[in-house]
Amino acid sequence: MCTEQAGRVINFSLSSAACNSEANGSRTNLSSSDSVINLDHGDPIIFEPYWRKMGDKCTVVIPGYQSLSYFANINNLCWFLEPELEKAIKRLHRVVGNAVVEDYHIVVGTGSSQLIQAALYALCPPDGPEPVSVVSAVPYYSSYQDVTEFLRSGLYKWEGDARTFDKEGAYIELVTSPNNPDGTIRERIVKQGEGKVVHDLAYYWPHYTPITSPADYDIMLFTISKCTGHAGSRIGWALVKDEPVAKKMTKFIELNTIGVSKESQLRAAKILGVISDNCLHFGSSSSDNFFEYAEHLMAKRWEELMDVVGRSAIFSLPEYPQEYCLFAGKFTEAHPAFAWMKCNNDKIEDCEKFFRGNKILTRGGKRFVADPKYVRVSMLGKEDEFNLFLERLLAIQETGYVLG
Amino acid sequence: MCTEQAGRVINFSLSSAACNSEANGSRTNLSSSDSVINLDHGDPIIFEPYWRKMGDKCTVVIPGYQSLSYFANINNLCWFLEPELEKAIKRLHRVVGNAVVEDYHIVVGTGSSQLIQAALYALCPPDGPEPVSVVSAVPYYSSYQDVTEFLRSGLYKWEGDARTFDKEGAYIELVTSPNNPDGTIRERIVKQGEGKVVHDLAYYWPHYTPITSPADYDIMLFTISKCTGHAGSRIGWALVKDEPVAKKMTKFIELNTIGVSKESQLRAAKILGVISDNCLHFGSSSSDNFFEYAEHLMAKRWEELMDVVGRSAIFSLPEYPQEYCLFAGKFTEAHPAFAWMKCNNDKIEDCEKFFRGNKILTRGGKRFVADPKYVRVSMLGKEDEFNLFLERLLAIQETGYVLG
Repeated sequence: MCTEQAGRVINFSLSSAACNSEANGSRTNLSSSDSVINLDHGDPIIFEPYWRKMGDKCTVVIPGYQSLSYFANINNLCWFLEPELEKAIKRLHRVVGNAVVEDYHIVVGTGSSQLIQAALYALCPPDGPEPVSVVSAVPYYSSYQDVTEFLRSGLYKWEGDARTFDKEGAYIELVTSPNNPDGTIRERIVKQGEGKVVHDLAYYWPHYTPITSPADYDIMLFTISKCTGHAGSRIGWALVKDEPVAKKMTKFIELNTIGVSKESQLRAAKILGVISDNCLHFGSSSSDNFFEYAEHLMAKRWEELMDVVGRSAIFSLPEYPQEYCLFAGKFTEAHPAFAWMKCNNDKIEDCEKFFRGNKILTRGGKRFVADPKYVRVSMLGKEDEFNLFLERLLAIQETGYVLG
Repeated sequence: MCTEQAGRVINFSLSSAACNSEANGSRTNLSSSDSVINLDHGDPIIFEPYWRKMGDKCTVVIPGYQSLSYFANINNLCWFLEPELEKAIKRLHRVVGNAVVEDYHIVVGTGSSQLIQAALYALCPPDGPEPVSVVSAVPYYSSYQDVTEFLRSGLYKWEGDARTFDKEGAYIELVTSPNNPDGTIRERIVKQGEGKVVHDLAYYWPHYTPITSPADYDIMLFTISKCTGHAGSRIGWALVKDEPVAKKMTKFIELNTIGVSKESQLRAAKILGVISDNCLHFGSSSSDNFFEYAEHLMAKRWEELMDVVGRSAIFSLPEYPQEYCLFAGKFTEAHPAFAWMKCNNDKIEDCEKFFRGNKILTRGGKRFVADPKYVRVSMLGKEDEFNLFLERLLAIQETGYVLG
């Protein structure tokens, strides 16, 4: 059993979020002013109504005798990748137009977290004299450092901000675009020497950002968690240009977990297939287009948040340019999965601590090596939690509640 | 695409087995004398007929809106463990009597491979001056060394055979019982100093070995792959006595893969539940008892193999003592998942190479740091492959085929 208490020790990890039973366990009490709203982690519950609406279309039925073997496709480089999932991934990227799939190898992973580690393993020589430097531009996803450091690997070493990185020799730059936490579109920063780049494109989908061109980087990571909201399935995939790199990534997953859940792969194949099917009816009045639905939902939340934030000068949000989205066929705006909020009040040095005092859990700027005046707020939570957040934010702004 | 050819480069890994399309891809040609039989890896296909017989009883139906969240049980130390799976695991261990579950924490993993790494992470101080030594008694499971070494971790270091280990300081001993490759019952070897032990009990089930007492070690690892044959699900679990260790193992899985497939967990819960239900009818004529079925199947294969091997002195097999099995309520014999065969012919120095010459892929003794006169032969493959293996073995013995 967990002994941590909400509001006492908040160290931002998923496990502490899970342990925070006051924050999560009492969702029935959300209307209470005492309830803690957890917007720290990006648990993508927002799209649940869409999946309920889909009814049986996405239901998978798996008999007891199916998928006993470790193997899925012995003729594929990635031998544990279900052929149906491979097809569904390629089709979806073609339909959405967010990534090139021709001449790419697909490596499936237990979420994209595993694939980041697989990519680091694949891009480092096994017997290098020095660990390869791993960098990312500030503000960067708070897990990159943890994931690079937790096993004290001799293959790679976390070196922090890509903007200030000036070491000689091999390096790997992790580029998240749109970026987590701030939703900006990014390109690689470091240009010198023997650099490799891993593009984490978890949020490069039309409900979060305009699709301006099909990405065609060497290694591109995607995850169903952020695409459709099926985070519990733990399915990510990498599009990899170079065969030896794809082979080494596959080897990592073989050593780490001997493949990836067949059940999750079969379900992901079904879900991605339904999404592709439903894209055929974009913009029609009877549209079940997932991206259209999700984009409307994200736009609505962002509109509401900007409305509340705009009522005072205490907080501010980034601005995103309108761009022509090839998928939507019109100019659209970004509606990132996270709001990167800045607190402009001089009395508030630590915005995350301030919000916590108001029973709102967010992830503070420090965790992204940024100013503690910033917080990252999940936009993907449950409707009632998001609405309570807006209510509380409004009250803070209107009454100056606990500002002093 | 894979470019390796069967019989040319066989490096024993799952990926090379997968790439070996001649070995795996042409199962329809098994009657041909040219076909390669792959008994290298332990893909547990043997129990498939049982699961077919179960029909709809083990079928899971998962609607599209289910299990979106990263979380499964926010009040549990292992926050991604499905409560149904936790209950099913505890019930099965109580029914079978192979492990104590009272006062243990359950940590679910993406197969037990991930849990071995989680245990190493949990048992090593994060900032120790020296990596902790990891040892296992020869012959040991060929993956232990790979898994310990592949990231060149500064937390732990592979030190080989537990029998000859005599370093001072912290160490972790991996004890597999029944052992892979040789099926023997094992206890820890190293006794000095600050040692921790991880018990890998993947094969401690009544179809492989007599259950002589409920195991109650500090860390015990199990996997559904070897228990029921559902290797594709990638579900393992650890029974962990110490709460801080269970927390650190959970943290490892959070960092590594942010939890474990919910689909696989829900299916595993169903399957383990059906097995427990069916144990209620042990020994009755209409029994669907999985362990009874599986034990008969294993006993039959072992009997057939011993019969063939006994016809000459070229090969030999280990002998296992009869022991009283608490589950079966009678004296039973071990029928290990692998046959640890020795070649007694002086002309054959490398038994794995010899078998390969006869188009039989096995895992040679060297991979287990043992005499190359030994090979590990999977007893869990498909019926037709196993029968062809017996035929070929008989031919080798009767004709001295390619002995010279």
